[in-house]
Amino acid sequence: MKNWLKSLKTRTPEEGFDLAIRLSQRGVELTQPSEEIRNVLRPVYSRDPNSLIAASQVIATNFQTVAAANDYWKGEKWKSKSADRE
Amino acid sequence: MKNWLKSLKTRTPEEGFDLAIRLSQRGVELTQPSEEIRNVLRPVYSRDPNSLIAASQVIATNFQTVAAANDYWKGEKWKSKSADRE
Amino acid sequence: MKNWLKSLKTRTPEEGFDLAIRLSQRGVELTQPSEEIRNVLRPVYSRDPNSLIAASQVIATNFQTVAAANDYWKGEKWKSKSADRE
Amino acid sequence: MKNWLKSLKTRTPEEGFDLAIRLSQRGVELTQPSEEIRNVLRPVYSRDPNSLIAASQVIATNFQTVAAANDYWKGEKWKSKSADRE
Amino acid sequence: MKNWLKSLKTRTPEEGFDLAIRLSQRGVELTQPSEEIRNVLRPVYSRDPNSLIAASQVIATNFQTVAAANDYWKGEKWKSKSADRE
Amino acid sequence: MKNWLKSLKTRTPEEGFDLAIRLSQRGVELTQPSEEIRNVLRPVYSRDPNSLIAASQVIATNFQTVAAANDYWKGEKWKSKSADRE
Repeated sequence: MKNWLKSLKTRTPEEGFDLAIRLSQRGVELTQPSEEIRNVLRPVYSRDPNSLIAASQVIATNFQTVAAANDYWKGEKWKSKSADRE
Repeated sequence: MKNWLKSLKTRTPEEGFDLAIRLSQRGVELTQPSEEIRNVLRPVYSRDPNSLIAASQVIATNFQTVAAANDYWKGEKWKSKSADRE
Repeated sequence: MKNWLKSLKTRTPEEGFDLAIRLSQRGVELTQPSEEIRNVLRPVYSRDPNSLIAASQVIATNFQTVAAANDYWKGEKWKSKSADRE
Repeated sequence: MKNWLKSLKTRTPEEGFDLAIRLSQRGVELTQPSEEIRNVLRPVYSRDPNSLIAASQVIATNFQTVAAANDYWKGEKWKSKSADRE
Repeated sequence: MKNWLKSLKTRTPEEGFDLAIRLSQRGVELTQPSEEIRNVLRPVYSRDPNSLIAASQVIATNFQTVAAANDYWKGEKWKSKSADRE
Repeated sequence: MKNWLKSLKTRTPEEGFDLAIRLSQRGVELTQPSEEIRNVLRPVYSRDPNSLIAASQVIATNFQTVAAANDYWKGEKWKSKSADRE
């Protein structure tokens, strides 16, 4: 799996959040490369509330990176409202 | 569910904290998309003190991102009091 | 409970630490809104050393945010000692 | 206990690490104010390796804050060696 | 094992993610230097979903460092599209 | 043990990683000062995969601090290749 991460740049915060999820899953995949085993594990952790919270923590950490890389998308939406102030 | 996150910009720190909570829940929802299963899990983790602390940790991490994106709302409240010093 | 977080600005590091605690508690309250249930849980986690360490971790994370928002209170105490060097 | 945290400024990285420890303990103390109970818990967590690692994680997080507040003590030791390069 | 980390600079985000994984593994290796014991442990944690999520958390933290060190690779891909805006 | 941390400055990223490990161990030592007890605990956590991952997480957090303190060692290796661009 080459070229799965060409850039940290995304057009919107929402796409940035999706990228954060992809980065989080990728960390799991590279630690457990077998898709078969991961498929066995998924129903386990996706029904364990503490696992879900821990997964959300990884996503939050990766979202920090993606958001910083995009300068918090300040240029997009924000420009329209506060271009002269920011 | 499209367009749930149009911007990281909020008017006040309080709205920023609400957004951090939304981001944290979204991380859970995207890992466990079934609302039915999540409804079963909620009473479990919301009565487990360690789960509550872990949830608060995710919110804290996302709040770091939102706060940075808003430059800590320095421009709003602060301006009135310390515009000449800051 | 509206207007619980008007600003991230505090006068001193100590008040900033208090705010970090408030943010951490707020993350718990918004996940478990029932004060009654929280009162039942408190004696549990406040006697579990791992819960106490986890709570301190959440506070540390929120204190990072508050400290950055206040530019680490460099302007206050520090000014008197090192205004010419900093 | 008032005035326990007058400033995040320390003279050396070592004093900064000590302050990070104090901040971490303070987070525990404010969650469990009873010194009696904390004294009962100490021998428990100080012999549990996972608790020790978790405590070290809190210290690391607080040390990030203290180090940033002191601009990583670049001005002190570093100045002598690399003032012209940095 | 000398010279395993010559630089935090990588050509692409993908290579940066690989480096983050290497840093995460290195943290484990330096805590448990015996390759024999690590080989015994691998099948254990690579089938425990919570371990996989925790490993992904370490990778995410190291990726923050590597991404910041590379200024989020803004200069590479981004230049072509937005050199005049950024 | 005085003067164990004179500076966060290291010559190379590799030495910086070593310092991050020292900071992580120091956090444990200051929570459990008895070397005798720590020697009893070491074989326990060094064979528990989740403890090893948690230790690697602490190291990653401290490495963030050390890397930032060294401006990611950009000046060293990088200068040779990209002094005119950076």
